[in-house]
Amino acid sequence: MLYTSEALEAVIEHLSRLPTIGRKTAQRIALWLLKQPREDAVALAGALVDMKDKISYCSVCQNITESDPCAICSSTRRDQSIVCVVEEPGDVLAIEKTNDFSGLYHVLGGVINPLEGIGPEELKVKELLARTGAGTLKEVILALNPSVEGEMTTLYLAKMLRPLGISVTRIASGVPIGSALEFVDEATIARALEGRIVV
Amino acid sequence: MLYTSEALEAVIEHLSRLPTIGRKTAQRIALWLLKQPREDAVALAGALVDMKDKISYCSVCQNITESDPCAICSSTRRDQSIVCVVEEPGDVLAIEKTNDFSGLYHVLGGVINPLEGIGPEELKVKELLARTGAGTLKEVILALNPSVEGEMTTLYLAKMLRPLGISVTRIASGVPIGSALEFVDEATIARALEGRIVV
Repeated sequence: MLYTSEALEAVIEHLSRLPTIGRKTAQRIALWLLKQPREDAVALAGALVDMKDKISYCSVCQNITESDPCAICSSTRRDQSIVCVVEEPGDVLAIEKTNDFSGLYHVLGGVINPLEGIGPEELKVKELLARTGAGTLKEVILALNPSVEGEMTTLYLAKMLRPLGISVTRIASGVPIGSALEFVDEATIARALEGRIVV
Repeated sequence: MLYTSEALEAVIEHLSRLPTIGRKTAQRIALWLLKQPREDAVALAGALVDMKDKISYCSVCQNITESDPCAICSSTRRDQSIVCVVEEPGDVLAIEKTNDFSGLYHVLGGVINPLEGIGPEELKVKELLARTGAGTLKEVILALNPSVEGEMTTLYLAKMLRPLGISVTRIASGVPIGSALEFVDEATIARALEGRIVV
């Protein structure tokens, strides 16, 4: 046995399964935790279980939430006529950070990916279409990642939503703020040219 | 509130306190854990608390252990006459991985660092000197990191151990295997020259 303790080995094993954490980092974190007060490890452990127990999915927007419907869906200060469609809960956080969007969200749970066997049925597409029934929805903003699968899903959703008389838009792709043209790939520049706007 | 869940926020907060994990990585890990089965989070949480409960310090070598004395100190197949002095438990793991050392260890718990108020009393120096009393100890290998503080501690320990009639050695500093001279700093090359050996 490499480690002098099975309990330590177990923590390293579990930590190294987490995304972005390799075995060396897992060992470093485990040894660091050993030096901290017991309460710190207990608090982290408690928070993990607590999170799994308290968080479920909003029945309206499919985002993670502690109450159903979620705080955003049940807010009276948000514009009920606009829904922004994203892939994952992390994307909602990213858009909320801008403080620039006051509508509602819809979390698809991924994108269409035929190679991995993910079609519209595996995503929350049915739930999105159901939200158009109430008649309050005027615009759907598609904010999927600009990957091949994201593009495919954007086109698919646009095709499904347009016949329902809803305005369908997508977020702009182009040169990121703070970047320089010479460092941006051709596909992005081509898209930025295509999406040029009058100033 | 930025996050739609306080339980999620709590996990991100706890994770981002761990070494090498920033807030973005913490968020990514937390959202990933949300997608995993509940058992996985419970198992990680359990392993953390278990580790804190089971692991203590070996009364002989001061390394982390589940039993006292530790597996290395109580092994009959290890050479009791050589002790390798290291800074932290992680260093024991690093040396054990080489399968090249069959002696015992002594974990100092750090190095002398006057700027941070760490003197010999804050380290396990007294415990190291006590181990020389039994008369079985013939050689002490100092394997501290080649930092300014590590050098200072090496010199200090050598000064304390030499009068006790024990052979005191230190691990070699030099060009790392696989590296190239042109990429190695001057201090390392100077040390490699100084420590040259007959071939």
